[in-house]
Formats: sequence, C-alpha cells, structure tokens
Amino acid sequence: MSPEAITRQLAERVVGSDPLQDAPACEAARAGVLDWLASVLAARDDQGAERIAAALGQGAGRASVPGRPGRLPALDAALVSGYLTHALDYDDVHESVRGHPSAVILSALLAEAEERGASGADFLAAYVVGVETMCRLGLALGRSHYEAGWHSTATLGAVAAAAACARLAGLSVQATAQAIGLAATQAGGIRAHFGTDVKPLHAGLAARAGLLAMRLAEAGIAGAAEPLGGRLGYFAVFGGEDARPELAVEGWGEPWQIVRPGLWFKRYPCCSASHHAADAALAIRASRMPDITAIEEVTVTFPPGGDAALIVREPTTGVEGRFSVEYVVAAALADGELGIGTFADKPLRPELVALAAKVRRRYDSSVVPAPDAMPKGRFTIVTVSFADGSTLTQRVDCPRGAPGRPLSPEERAAKYADASRGLPAAWQDMPGKIARLEQLADMHSFIPDIQNIQEV
Amino acid sequence: MSPEAITRQLAERVVGSDPLQDAPACEAARAGVLDWLASVLAARDDQGAERIAAALGQGAGRASVPGRPGRLPALDAALVSGYLTHALDYDDVHESVRGHPSAVILSALLAEAEERGASGADFLAAYVVGVETMCRLGLALGRSHYEAGWHSTATLGAVAAAAACARLAGLSVQATAQAIGLAATQAGGIRAHFGTDVKPLHAGLAARAGLLAMRLAEAGIAGAAEPLGGRLGYFAVFGGEDARPELAVEGWGEPWQIVRPGLWFKRYPCCSASHHAADAALAIRASRMPDITAIEEVTVTFPPGGDAALIVREPTTGVEGRFSVEYVVAAALADGELGIGTFADKPLRPELVALAAKVRRRYDSSVVPAPDAMPKGRFTIVTVSFADGSTLTQRVDCPRGAPGRPLSPEERAAKYADASRGLPAAWQDMPGKIARLEQLADMHSFIPDIQNIQEV
Repeated sequence: MSPEAITRQLAERVVGSDPLQDAPACEAARAGVLDWLASVLAARDDQGAERIAAALGQGAGRASVPGRPGRLPALDAALVSGYLTHALDYDDVHESVRGHPSAVILSALLAEAEERGASGADFLAAYVVGVETMCRLGLALGRSHYEAGWHSTATLGAVAAAAACARLAGLSVQATAQAIGLAATQAGGIRAHFGTDVKPLHAGLAARAGLLAMRLAEAGIAGAAEPLGGRLGYFAVFGGEDARPELAVEGWGEPWQIVRPGLWFKRYPCCSASHHAADAALAIRASRMPDITAIEEVTVTFPPGGDAALIVREPTTGVEGRFSVEYVVAAALADGELGIGTFADKPLRPELVALAAKVRRRYDSSVVPAPDAMPKGRFTIVTVSFADGSTLTQRVDCPRGAPGRPLSPEERAAKYADASRGLPAAWQDMPGKIARLEQLADMHSFIPDIQNIQEV
Repeated sequence: MSPEAITRQLAERVVGSDPLQDAPACEAARAGVLDWLASVLAARDDQGAERIAAALGQGAGRASVPGRPGRLPALDAALVSGYLTHALDYDDVHESVRGHPSAVILSALLAEAEERGASGADFLAAYVVGVETMCRLGLALGRSHYEAGWHSTATLGAVAAAAACARLAGLSVQATAQAIGLAATQAGGIRAHFGTDVKPLHAGLAARAGLLAMRLAEAGIAGAAEPLGGRLGYFAVFGGEDARPELAVEGWGEPWQIVRPGLWFKRYPCCSASHHAADAALAIRASRMPDITAIEEVTVTFPPGGDAALIVREPTTGVEGRFSVEYVVAAALADGELGIGTFADKPLRPELVALAAKVRRRYDSSVVPAPDAMPKGRFTIVTVSFADGSTLTQRVDCPRGAPGRPLSPEERAAKYADASRGLPAAWQDMPGKIARLEQLADMHSFIPDIQNIQEV
C-alpha cells in the first residue's frame, strides 16, 4: 500500500464497514456504553466540571452531560463529559491504546448523537468504528509515542472521536478523511500533567477536538490530502521512526478491537496499577475475615517499577488514596469492598490510616509474570502477617475486569448501580435501555434529563 | 536556574514586567495592532470564516471579528479572527518564532479585552508580553521543533496567547503558570496542512486554546507545577535535545523582542518567499516602465531551495498566484503594484498569464547572501530581457517590511487603507484610534460594529 494513501484507506474503512453484523462487537459495545455511563455518573459531583463549565461560558444546547443538570452545546458537552468520565480514572482501558478509549469517543458521540437525533444503531456502529480507529492508531504509532511524553488517550482519542462522529454523521469518504486530518492537527496532551485534573481534562479536550474536526469537515474546510502519512504527517510527527502507518488499517475489524483484545472495565475507582493488589487483598479478606487489629504487617511485592503510578504513600483523603496501594489494600482488608465511597474527597477513617501505615512495598525482579499478565510483565503479591505468626498470601497477575478475567454481567450491573445511587428512577432503567440500544430511534431521548433537584 | 522552575520564572516575568515604560515597545505594539487589523480586514470576505462559524454553531456574545457582522462568544471570536488574520498570509512574521505572532496573540487578546472591557493600556502591555513569550519559546525550543513538522505559529502561539490573556486578566503568578501549562498541553498543529485552509485555521485554534487555558486557570483548574520543564514537559516533548529551556526567560525584555529583532510587516498579500522578487520587479518597473509585450524572458534566481514555499508555477487564479513567483513578478512588472485585488479569487488576466509563462526559475549556490538577508541566506535576483537585447537586473536580499528595511509610517497606513477599502467611515478612523490606544478606557468600543450592511 502506498503510504500516501493511508488516510483515505482509513476513511474508507470508517465509512464502509458494518460492525452491527458482528454480534460480539455489538455486545461489547453495549457493555462499553454501560461502563462509560457508570464512570461519568460516579464523578458527577466532581468540582472540576463546574470550573470547566464556567470557563466555557453559559451557552445552552441540546446535548447532555449525564448526571448534570441542563443541556449544553454539543462541543461543550463533549468536553465536560470527557473530563468527567476520566475524572476518577474509573473508565475503560484498552491495551492497544495504552489509554482510555470510551472517555473520548463516547463523550463526543453522545453529544453529536443527541444534537442530531441519531439512532441508537448508528450510535453503536460509530462507537465500534471509533474504538477500532483508536486502537489501530495506537498500534501504528508504536510504543515510543507514549514514552516520548504524549498522553495517548488524548492524542489518539481526538482522531478516533472524529472518525466516530464522521461515521455517525454519514460523511463521505473524502469528508471523513478531512475530519481525520483536522483532528490529527489538533492532537495534543502531555504526560507532565499526570496526577492532576488536567489528565482527565485531556480526554474532554480530545472529545471536543474530534467533534469539531468532523463539523469543520462537514462545513467544507479542507486540509491536506494526506495528513496522517508522509514526512510531516501525524505518524511521523507523533511516532517518529517507530511508526508503522500500515497498521492503521491492516486487519481492520478482524476481529474488532472492542472484542479482542477487548475493553478492560475497571472494578474499582482507583489507579489501575493498584487493581492487582486490590484483588489480592479482597481474596484474602474473603478467605478469612481478618481481625485487622491483629495484622502486624502487610507486604506488597511488585516487579521493579510496577508501582510507578502509585505516587501516594501516606494519603489523607480518599482522592489521594486512589493513587496509594497502602490505602487500597487497607480498605480492601478492612471493608471487603472498594466502592465510590471508599475514594470520596473526605478525610480517611483513622483505623484505615493506621492499617495503611503497616503496608510495605517490595520489589522482586526474579518473579516470572504470567503470560496473560495485564499489563504485560505485571504481577502483585500481597502477604498479610498476623500477630500469631500466621500469614496469608495472594498473587494476582491479571486483575479482575481485564480482558483475561472479564467482569460478569452482574458485576457490571453492580458497578452501574453503585455509580447511579441516589439518582431518580429513570436512571435505574438505563441498563435495560442500553440492552435495547439498537432499537432506539432518536438518541435525544436516551439520557434522562436532570433538573436542579435534590437527589432521591 | 533550576530547570524545574522555568514555568514559574516565565510566569513571574509575564506578570511583573512593565513594557509600557518602554516607548519603542509601545510604538512597535501600536504598529503591530494596525498591521494585524489590516490583515484581518483584507481577508474579511474569505469563505472559510463562514464555514468555521457554521461548524462552531450560532452563539452570540460580546467579542467582535473585525470586518464581520455580529458579535460572538470570546472563545469563538478568537478562533475566527485567528483564522482570518492568517488566511491571506498577509500578517506579521517574527524570526525568533519562525512564524506569525500577532495572528494568534491579538486574536485572543482582542476577544478577551472586549468581553472584559479591558483598557487599551492593559491590552498593549499584554500584547508586548505575549510577543516576548512567543519569541522566547521559539528560541528555547530551537530549530528542530519546526523541522520535526510542527507549525510553530500554533505550537508557540497557544502558550503565548495564554500568557498574554493571563496578563490582561491580571492573574496571579501561580494562576499564570497554570494558564501557561494548560496551553502547553493543548499545543498542536502539523505542517502537513501547509498550503491549505488548515494552516490559517491553526492560528485560530491556537488563539482559542490560549484563551481557554487562561479561563480554565482563572476558574481554578490546576495542572502540573512544572509543565514546561522536566522529562515529560513541553520543551522535552516539542523540542527534544535541541531545547534550551533557560532561553525562555534569559534576556527577557532587554530589549523587547517586538522591538528587536522586531516584527516583519508584509508589504504584499502573498507568500513571503516571493517578496524579494516582488521588490526587485517593482524596482525594475519603477526604473523604466517596460513595454511588457517586448519582454522576451524573465529569470528569477534563488539560492537552492529558496523557492520551496512557492509551490505554484502555472496559476489560474489570484489565490493560486499568491504562491507563484511567476505571477508575482508578472503582476509587479505589468501593474507596478501588488495589492489585495492582485490576489483575488478570480481568473487571472490573460496578459499576466502570458507574461508569467515567460518567467524562468534558476538556482545559484555561488552567490553570497548579504549579512542582513531575511531570512538568513536568502536572496533573489530578477533579470528582465527585452526583444532589443537589453536587460534590467535587480537583486534583493532583505525585502521591504522586514526589520532591516521597515515600512515607513505612510506605507503602513497605505496597507491599512487598501485593506479597509469599502468599509464605513468609522474604519478609516482606526489608525488614529490605534495611535491613542493607551488612552482608551474600554476596549469594548474599540472595533466598530458592522451590521449586515452593503459596503459603501
């Protein structure tokens, strides 16, 4: 294939493929929508969303931010929803992306689908195509992209959101290629901001950029014929010598990336690097309800560097605890569950602080990770030592929720129920509505409106 | 200086310096505002602005796009103005930026100044500080940034616009540092799009991103403490090993970059790579009014690669002619002037097409460019050969308008008069209004409103 034609080849696939013929893809997409909605709702009281809305100004429109009152212009709604989805780091992950696809893609798609009154079937098809685009861009850019400092959720997400929105809007191949190019040139987001509100903001900015790219292309703004390939194109600028542009289209939809490797739905609203330890601690708690006052020490063993993202060792609030394996393990052992309330922006309970102080991190380069370890090369071993000299140990290489150990339908429903707790009845019907999404004629009626009500 | 403190050091200078004490800086800034306004007005009928406004939706606000009817929300106005300023490539250039400072900075600043009702003095001070920021970022990133494929007008411009807007809004040092970081992570724009409408769109997107960054910081969104320095910061990601972050602040305001090297105001609304040939052809025309039917051949001699940006050899319209040295030379010889009408989106006059067909390009690596050549290493020699065997030759190394050969006040006024031709009387008063800009109490009344009127 000529590298000059890569944008057009990608656009042809975005426009021409038919993911609704693939039952596993549809099922994965419905699960993705439910998990995305849970992630947005779980964060609906986050103060950042207020601040972002204030910065954008006070426009009214037809697009919703799930769980928040009022409707916004679609471009603004995409930004706020994208931020909220990723605010708790509770949203899905895909290994081909090395980041979070649905935060960007679904936030842009829902806003545009509501404004346009698109059908549920078109919405689902566009989502599958968007995830495919984002994953294949990740494969095509290669590993050095992330390592150079780019936040791939944003840099791949903007282009994927543009592709998804172009598919939803029914743009031609040529206009779809233009939308892709207009998003590629808006791509940005540097990892210097990790650990701050700007990380989830990147997801929102990318959602908005992708939607704007589609609208600019639809309005007739034309850029380069080949914005992805070539010496000055997206792959060269963002991927350098590692980039393999042909991977953006090779194997497209065979199988769909949303099916295999598939989305990782997070079981706990905390840093994914702590999920292995969380699973292990919860298994220890389930095997024997420990008297936590009898615990002398807990050791958590990682491969060297495996805890790099867990930047907090002495948390004081639930928000800080999201990045502390000490707190995650303590809460799992003490409470037997890790829910939204575990990571609220409140001071931590003293007995959890005391237990967290007994947690030690260790590193062991001699342990061989399992072949299905997620991410590759990762493992975590939790060992609890009691005053009577006994110990309990659990090892986890692939956490619950990752594609190798998917959540059951009941666990996914429970995640949604936890996230939507306190919202009116229409919200409790959403799992059923999502199960019938292909039959929905007009997405404008999909998300229940919220007045400025007291939550029930 | 600790490289970790570079963002704060920059923010301290943005907040704390006092450019209004420097008379040459104020004079240069007033000249920049007039030239910027001429560049926007010259492009006011460009169809791209309609398309972009359509893609953004129909919000109304307090910010103007000079020469266009109605007012928009400031974020949208910044985008459309940024696009329009750069649409004809008629706007100012700065060698430290390797791009176009005022298209981004003034488009963001005017929108915010109108919405806030800022004073003319604060507006001018913020502009000088914004140009300083953009130029020093260019020096700090080094040459490889542009060569890697980045469009520096956009990638530096977003951060500079944020700094300028933060200064205008009176943000604290800490909030200014946050605004800078929020813009740095929105920076983008790849050179693959050069030669299309997306190139000027980059200026608009950067203006909007910078203004949004300021507003997010003002609203309390906080990102990394050090977004510019460090391994994952802006300088490392966008500049690589060439970056010298300390140059972002060393020598700040001594003298102000808007004074020296200073802005290049373009004399003709066509590609700057053709300006040397334009000056030469106009000088030939002025020395002897040629009978153009008696011209046998015109040769235009460049250093190798000196015509890389002049990508059109057989133009059919004025828009294409903007990137054709053949047409620029033909029009200069035939008409003795190169105005906005010369490059209209209309078919070319047949006698100019015939003369352009007689123009040949040559390359000569043995010519030694002048020390003040602009850009460095550039020269152009135009030789006209007549049927009677006589020839006329002119050589230009530094074109009119570049800092080495600045336009006279009369020439700057003439550029504005040409650009504002056909607009109501209030627009003809703008040069005087800009000359008194420091006295203006409220920028909201600066730009005359335009109704949907017939132009006079």
